Amino acid sequence: MPAKRNDVPSRVRVRREPKRGRYDRSSIDDVLDRGLVAHVAFVDGDQPVCIPTLYARVGDLVYIHGSTKSRAVRALAGGAPACVTVTVVDGLVLARSAFEHSANYSSAMLFGAFTLVEDADERTRAFEAFTEKLLPGRWDEVRQPNATELKATEILALEIDEASAKVRSGPPSDDGSADAELDTWAGVVPILRSYGAPEPSPGLRPGIDVSESVRRLLTRDPPG
Amino acid sequence: MPAKRNDVPSRVRVRREPKRGRYDRSSIDDVLDRGLVAHVAFVDGDQPVCIPTLYARVGDLVYIHGSTKSRAVRALAGGAPACVTVTVVDGLVLARSAFEHSANYSSAMLFGAFTLVEDADERTRAFEAFTEKLLPGRWDEVRQPNATELKATEILALEIDEASAKVRSGPPSDDGSADAELDTWAGVVPILRSYGAPEPSPGLRPGIDVSESVRRLLTRDPPG
Repeated sequence: MPAKRNDVPSRVRVRREPKRGRYDRSSIDDVLDRGLVAHVAFVDGDQPVCIPTLYARVGDLVYIHGSTKSRAVRALAGGAPACVTVTVVDGLVLARSAFEHSANYSSAMLFGAFTLVEDADERTRAFEAFTEKLLPGRWDEVRQPNATELKATEILALEIDEASAKVRSGPPSDDGSADAELDTWAGVVPILRSYGAPEPSPGLRPGIDVSESVRRLLTRDPPG
Repeated sequence: MPAKRNDVPSRVRVRREPKRGRYDRSSIDDVLDRGLVAHVAFVDGDQPVCIPTLYARVGDLVYIHGSTKSRAVRALAGGAPACVTVTVVDGLVLARSAFEHSANYSSAMLFGAFTLVEDADERTRAFEAFTEKLLPGRWDEVRQPNATELKATEILALEIDEASAKVRSGPPSDDGSADAELDTWAGVVPILRSYGAPEPSPGLRPGIDVSESVRRLLTRDPPG
């Protein structure tokens, strides 16, 4: 994985605000591991389509899954060029000028083509990764996929190869400008995420307490 | 705007989990107005590209903006087919089976082509909408765009025409299944968003208190 801007393929290079670009795997993995939903773009005819989907990273791979009947899954499984983008927003950037207003965020963008995961063990590990990404520790608490469920689901993998991250952090950029003389308050308002009280399913049998994974979850920061 | 599934163009129709599909404008506007970041897909050569961007809805239009030098802005201003997706995640859906794990979310997907906004008044109103979407009441507190800033920025508009929303809410779907007999806790863990304490810019002149818009913001729910 190239870590310097000049080593990366042209389509990955961050052109706008190049100082925000990151090409090292740890920056990319950090965004992928903080995010919960990816937006996956592919082309259907000449129409780009951008679908939100859950995902999980395992090592060098990003997995997504979907019904065997899904149009997106069929297109992506066929090797259509794809772009996977994950974005986490961390705050509102409030400058003295309208123009310099922005958001603090981290995003990762991956290019490539998905391949269909056919190996039974890898498919099970991907299911485990999806479950564990939603809720660490959950896989061991739940019924694992049965033959019917496995048959109804395609799992697709994309290698993290052509990838970049883009990060904007810190205060508004007009501190050093003439605008800093204005009487306007400027700064950042963080956007925080937290988990609410667990809501038991209406059909939950009486006497079943929240599981250990849920108890632990409430002490963590949620994904972006 | 068609409100029934059978009236909507084929590429807009929600095929997977069709009961989650919504085609009325209020459902679509609700997602657009709750979200903060849109993912915009377009095609560069044969490569789909999916970029995160701030946006604002004004009536029937979704505005985005970017540098006149941006590759995405140039492609989109040229009328390239686009897909705009906004997704808000509301909770983790924890079923008794790995397979039924999911997320509660609302998403909106718009198809069409952007047009370049050239009218000076409309451009100013779009800037106002971007500022007000980040922080209602902010526009009147800040310096408005000057000629140099306006010249450096393209504003693009997409009409909300071919559009759909998709909403998943409520408990896991295995309450009525044999899995409901398992000893596993099942339910939803809400993901909540809130604003943190405002962080004044390091260059803020002494004695400037947070503005009225920021004070009001802290009593609101943040965008998704």
